[in-house]
Amino acid sequence: MLVVQRQPEYRKDPLSDGWVVIAAERNGRPDEFRDLPSPRSAGPCPFCHGNENATPGEICKYPPDSGEQWKVRVVPNKFPAVVRCDGVSSALVIKTFKNGSPQLFTSVLGHGGHEVIIESPQHAISLTDLDDESLRLTFLAYRDRMKTLAAEGAWNYVQIFKNVGAAAGSSIEHAHSQVVGLPAVPVRVADELTHSREFLKATRRRLFEALLEEELAQGTRIVAETADFVALCPYASRFAYETWILPRQTLPRFETSSEALAIALGRFTAAVIGKLERTLHRPAYNYLLHSAPFDGTADDHYHWHLEIFPRVTKPAGFEWGTGYYINPVAPEQAAEVLRNA
Amino acid sequence: MLVVQRQPEYRKDPLSDGWVVIAAERNGRPDEFRDLPSPRSAGPCPFCHGNENATPGEICKYPPDSGEQWKVRVVPNKFPAVVRCDGVSSALVIKTFKNGSPQLFTSVLGHGGHEVIIESPQHAISLTDLDDESLRLTFLAYRDRMKTLAAEGAWNYVQIFKNVGAAAGSSIEHAHSQVVGLPAVPVRVADELTHSREFLKATRRRLFEALLEEELAQGTRIVAETADFVALCPYASRFAYETWILPRQTLPRFETSSEALAIALGRFTAAVIGKLERTLHRPAYNYLLHSAPFDGTADDHYHWHLEIFPRVTKPAGFEWGTGYYINPVAPEQAAEVLRNA
Repeated sequence: MLVVQRQPEYRKDPLSDGWVVIAAERNGRPDEFRDLPSPRSAGPCPFCHGNENATPGEICKYPPDSGEQWKVRVVPNKFPAVVRCDGVSSALVIKTFKNGSPQLFTSVLGHGGHEVIIESPQHAISLTDLDDESLRLTFLAYRDRMKTLAAEGAWNYVQIFKNVGAAAGSSIEHAHSQVVGLPAVPVRVADELTHSREFLKATRRRLFEALLEEELAQGTRIVAETADFVALCPYASRFAYETWILPRQTLPRFETSSEALAIALGRFTAAVIGKLERTLHRPAYNYLLHSAPFDGTADDHYHWHLEIFPRVTKPAGFEWGTGYYINPVAPEQAAEVLRNA
Repeated sequence: MLVVQRQPEYRKDPLSDGWVVIAAERNGRPDEFRDLPSPRSAGPCPFCHGNENATPGEICKYPPDSGEQWKVRVVPNKFPAVVRCDGVSSALVIKTFKNGSPQLFTSVLGHGGHEVIIESPQHAISLTDLDDESLRLTFLAYRDRMKTLAAEGAWNYVQIFKNVGAAAGSSIEHAHSQVVGLPAVPVRVADELTHSREFLKATRRRLFEALLEEELAQGTRIVAETADFVALCPYASRFAYETWILPRQTLPRFETSSEALAIALGRFTAAVIGKLERTLHRPAYNYLLHSAPFDGTADDHYHWHLEIFPRVTKPAGFEWGTGYYINPVAPEQAAEVLRNA
């Protein structure tokens, strides 16, 4: 009765102009959505050392010559949202996305690259559970995979993100991140680029630099600082305890920043997530890395940064209906609690 | 250490230009976010008959002269996202929202009206648990509250929505809906208005009419039909089993549609939610009503409709990072399952 695995597809909603990826990985069996108890097992799982055959063929590992003693592995996503589609070019996807003529149904094959970074040979869960070497190599892998995907020439953007906990949409407990190569700059990043560009034009200042300067002067939303980074709860936080990490230097692209900075980002991110975990009792969380696109068009004004969303509040009917977020904790309150955590 | 209840505030994110409502109802105590077991108790709760004193003073009840024998009650939200702010006009809010000049921090007081519709004197949970009279009066209350708030002249939009279950962001189990009067048309509705208007201009057809005609011709995404309504899984569904209900007639505004149609919508919505509940084992869900704004500017092309989101999949790092949604169930598969449920 139900159809088998379909090719992923980008589809446009004619009402909102928003794009979705229809990736019918699960064949639509409704029983798969039964509420299951959270899998707080100790492993072993398909991502654990010894079960390497349970994942699709390895793309690379870290350290590269570690053999079975790997600390971090990169594999294709077994249930990809997007796949490398023969006969579909990134140019075609971009052209379809850009087509502004009103149409009821617009779609194009879900061309893209979707990888998983397994962050530890042991059954670690949160970023804060990784040992120093896995943490270091995970953030080097972020930089490395972005560099490699950029060099392929097929993608203009790579979205790196991490889901921890069922409430954050994670279906596998073992610590991992995801890397998605996309033909077009996604709408959320495109919005940031637009406003960052407009700010530069209107004020002759870079938005991120102005923001950092003002946030440091006010101080009330600052969570933590190092020589390289500032963590803060943004002024218009969508979620309770939302926290961003920004490098102090203006660096548009993550993959061309130094290895040392990537490693330092890993350490600082784990420290900030430690504060969130002590404060909110190990909540589910997402984080995501925003960086300038590979075509260089935002290199003169954009600033890469990491956004962390503890999933303690849930977007509900108001958010879906209006597009506005209700945040029940003022960022100034959240930052005060986190500073002291 | 922590500040007490603050006035709600609209704040703009300078990066995305998105608006959030900072409504620090809970004083930011992080312990309030501990995971609690879902409160599947049988009541009584503050919304149950006999506990009328536990809610702020009643705005109205249905039937109006029912005294203690009410079937539906409307009360102010005890933890409002927006409040009627002295000295703040809707014009000021709209002016602040429209101000396009690049600024780091933009805010205005959270002026608005936030009400709760208690849908049953007994401890019902889902819309499908209501008796016929409470169901009928709930949907008449939607229409009535929209009409009343429209007549106040202070609001240009009213967002009606319902959250059922903790995973859908509901903090109170007892069946209820929420009504929020807003000075400005929210961004998600404004987007729909823009594309609906552009479609009319480009094709001389109303987008919703064209969409309904084409969906009925294709048939694959249709879930159910009556003389008045069509339920379908939209072509670019963001969520697994997302289902919309559209009236067959072109009716821009819900509050000026007939009482009979509001009552029929209630019956049909309960029937469609029954299908979702049988298929997905009583999932958490949100629904929301989109309608043309009170200023009449969309009356020639817009179409009110109800969007239902079962909360069986969770937006995760990819969605927050890119603004694109990954939907693991093709709408055609979802509709086939729901038609037969």
